[in-house]
Amino acid sequence: MAQKNAFYAQSGGVTSVINASACGVIQTAKLYPEHIGTVYAGRNGIIGALREELIDTSKESTADIDALKHTPAGAFGSCRYKLKSIEDNRAEYERLIEVFKAHNIGYFFYNGGGDSADTCLKVAQLSEQLGYPIQAIHIPKTVDNDLPFTDNSPGFGSVAKYVAVSTREAGMDVASMSESSTKVFILEVMGRHAGWIAAAGGLANEKDGQPPHIILFPEIAFDKEKFLAKVKQTVEEHGYCVIVTSEGVQNADGSFLADAGTVDAFGHKQLGGAAPTLANMIRSELNYKYHWALADYLQRSARHIASATDVEQAYAVGKAAVEFAVAGKTAVMPAIIRGKGEAYSWTIGEAPLAEVANVEIMLPREYITEDGFHITEAARRYLSPLIQGEDYPPYKNGLPNYVELKKEMVAKKLSSDFKVKV
Amino acid sequence: MAQKNAFYAQSGGVTSVINASACGVIQTAKLYPEHIGTVYAGRNGIIGALREELIDTSKESTADIDALKHTPAGAFGSCRYKLKSIEDNRAEYERLIEVFKAHNIGYFFYNGGGDSADTCLKVAQLSEQLGYPIQAIHIPKTVDNDLPFTDNSPGFGSVAKYVAVSTREAGMDVASMSESSTKVFILEVMGRHAGWIAAAGGLANEKDGQPPHIILFPEIAFDKEKFLAKVKQTVEEHGYCVIVTSEGVQNADGSFLADAGTVDAFGHKQLGGAAPTLANMIRSELNYKYHWALADYLQRSARHIASATDVEQAYAVGKAAVEFAVAGKTAVMPAIIRGKGEAYSWTIGEAPLAEVANVEIMLPREYITEDGFHITEAARRYLSPLIQGEDYPPYKNGLPNYVELKKEMVAKKLSSDFKVKV
Repeated sequence: MAQKNAFYAQSGGVTSVINASACGVIQTAKLYPEHIGTVYAGRNGIIGALREELIDTSKESTADIDALKHTPAGAFGSCRYKLKSIEDNRAEYERLIEVFKAHNIGYFFYNGGGDSADTCLKVAQLSEQLGYPIQAIHIPKTVDNDLPFTDNSPGFGSVAKYVAVSTREAGMDVASMSESSTKVFILEVMGRHAGWIAAAGGLANEKDGQPPHIILFPEIAFDKEKFLAKVKQTVEEHGYCVIVTSEGVQNADGSFLADAGTVDAFGHKQLGGAAPTLANMIRSELNYKYHWALADYLQRSARHIASATDVEQAYAVGKAAVEFAVAGKTAVMPAIIRGKGEAYSWTIGEAPLAEVANVEIMLPREYITEDGFHITEAARRYLSPLIQGEDYPPYKNGLPNYVELKKEMVAKKLSSDFKVKV
Repeated sequence: MAQKNAFYAQSGGVTSVINASACGVIQTAKLYPEHIGTVYAGRNGIIGALREELIDTSKESTADIDALKHTPAGAFGSCRYKLKSIEDNRAEYERLIEVFKAHNIGYFFYNGGGDSADTCLKVAQLSEQLGYPIQAIHIPKTVDNDLPFTDNSPGFGSVAKYVAVSTREAGMDVASMSESSTKVFILEVMGRHAGWIAAAGGLANEKDGQPPHIILFPEIAFDKEKFLAKVKQTVEEHGYCVIVTSEGVQNADGSFLADAGTVDAFGHKQLGGAAPTLANMIRSELNYKYHWALADYLQRSARHIASATDVEQAYAVGKAAVEFAVAGKTAVMPAIIRGKGEAYSWTIGEAPLAEVANVEIMLPREYITEDGFHITEAARRYLSPLIQGEDYPPYKNGLPNYVELKKEMVAKKLSSDFKVKV
């Protein structure tokens, strides 16, 4: 088999461990010099391939590549750029193949969620048709944890840990002040369609009465009366109430709760967040003193409190992607397979991309308690192993010492420019 | 000197290290059995003294008391309850003395901010007048860092570290996505009157161009045109813009920016937070894609990323308070004194409460750059040492293993009840 170069790109919302997958790809590729030459990374994801903006990862020091394991966000840049269908924009796919051909790239490693699994599959299919076969391997990544086939998605475990830890800490804060101050605290977390991240907040509660007392999931239609009654009952019983809400919590008619129906001083509709909407509701109807927090990007970039399990799995899927490629596979994704035993264990399996692309996994109903406000034992058994272990980054000057790569660009070989509308 | 019992209470907003001060008090008191009998802690702060609800700390295990060093929030409960002036409510002070007398309490350790320093001073003065002298020692604590005399206030260093770390992490996230997605990110942090916490976000920036690019302080009147021009210039130069804003950022007329002048669906005025207000402004005027986060209690309870320097100082002021007491002092506060050398060093000094009570220290103008949007080298020299060192709590099941005390109550000795309106 002739040696070919590899292309690696990060896609969609970044996570605190996506660079660990990149590290797995780059370090493992070095073990197979007879198959893989240089690993090029797309500058800002797939956009970098379309623009022929390739970062030469071989120009980075060994130490810097190793430091990717503890560095959050996308070290090469990521993008929100979904390739259209082949019918709608065949030129884009042809351009990808043209760039790959120009740089003798035979391996395409695409690190993302459901959309990018779909793109990856199409590249595999089309390259075959165009007579320049590319082995296209998808590497799973999404804090949303909504990919099928894999037991969980790298990136999720660390957000889950962040949310569980933050809920515990803020919950203790509220508990200690509630006699004379804040009675209700609301933490809004990510998850527009699926409640996996909100569910993780439930892990902070390890015995009766501990926060969070209420979790709101996108999967359960929001019932204002029931919710307010539960808040009231919780405050009366425990003296305070801690709520974790998904950003995507919805009314029975499918509208987002965060759409408060108000306009700002400039006449724009305000999407104020679910937490402040709930807070105003609680003030208005129950008159409790409240506070709320909205974690936003803090949760998915919090490498300082990453799950060691998640870091390990993120690296493992990157490593496995290369191993799959050198074994001649294409249109597959390394998946995390949970062991059947009582104690948590996992191995890497193989998922055909045709079965992964564009499928979203929701939180199963049996993971949510009957009243719709908390997680069940089944959910705990699923979630708890994913947040195990701490994997602290090194510190310098009191701050995490994250690496910033040199990102040396490969000389362009194509004369033509390709316009990418971002 | 006859042995007396001691009373310890937590006051005001809790922090991630206030229990380290409690630990310092309790462990040090044990070293002076000839002076100090039992340390009683107020249940929910000073309210516990007024209600004669005293927690017997001697009933806690040695291990649990030791675990206070790594446990956030107020282990005995805190409160927002300001004693009125002696003229307005002499009965409250007399009640305190009555409770102290009933339980043979000769030492009053009050762990809080400026208001509680004032209360502490009054207790010292009045107890003298009433013929039952109490040695009243104030222990500094406030995330606001606005206490005079002490170089910094325990609790602040850990919030500062949390904000600096979070700004760095979220900033990297935004940087890696900005080509095709979010261009502006805003993190709202605490600080209604003083910009110390927002200033700490500036430490994430260690070289030109790194986030945060803009910091908004309550000390600098908000100038919309200047702000928007700076955001635009930053996005054009760096491709993105990260902003840290104090919750207390104000317009030139002194009104809070967070008061957006909108009403919710129930007709209530919305105090939406400074971050969403700025975000809407940026969307409306510059049309950049934005995200924002509001850290709220997460920042002051984040013991998982506490500053080791802060933990050490919090313990030290608790320890020093007891040492001052056994040395016969009253109406004083242990203060952190910064060494004069190039390398950071600190010792514990002594501040007379008369000079501490009710004084608020603002961020000095020379800590803010001339354009009002960032911190100066002088600010960095002041702030940086306070976030040095990590002091991780132990973990269990993937979560910090914080202690929950038994909180065994002391039998009441007074027949009369005392109504406390919270």
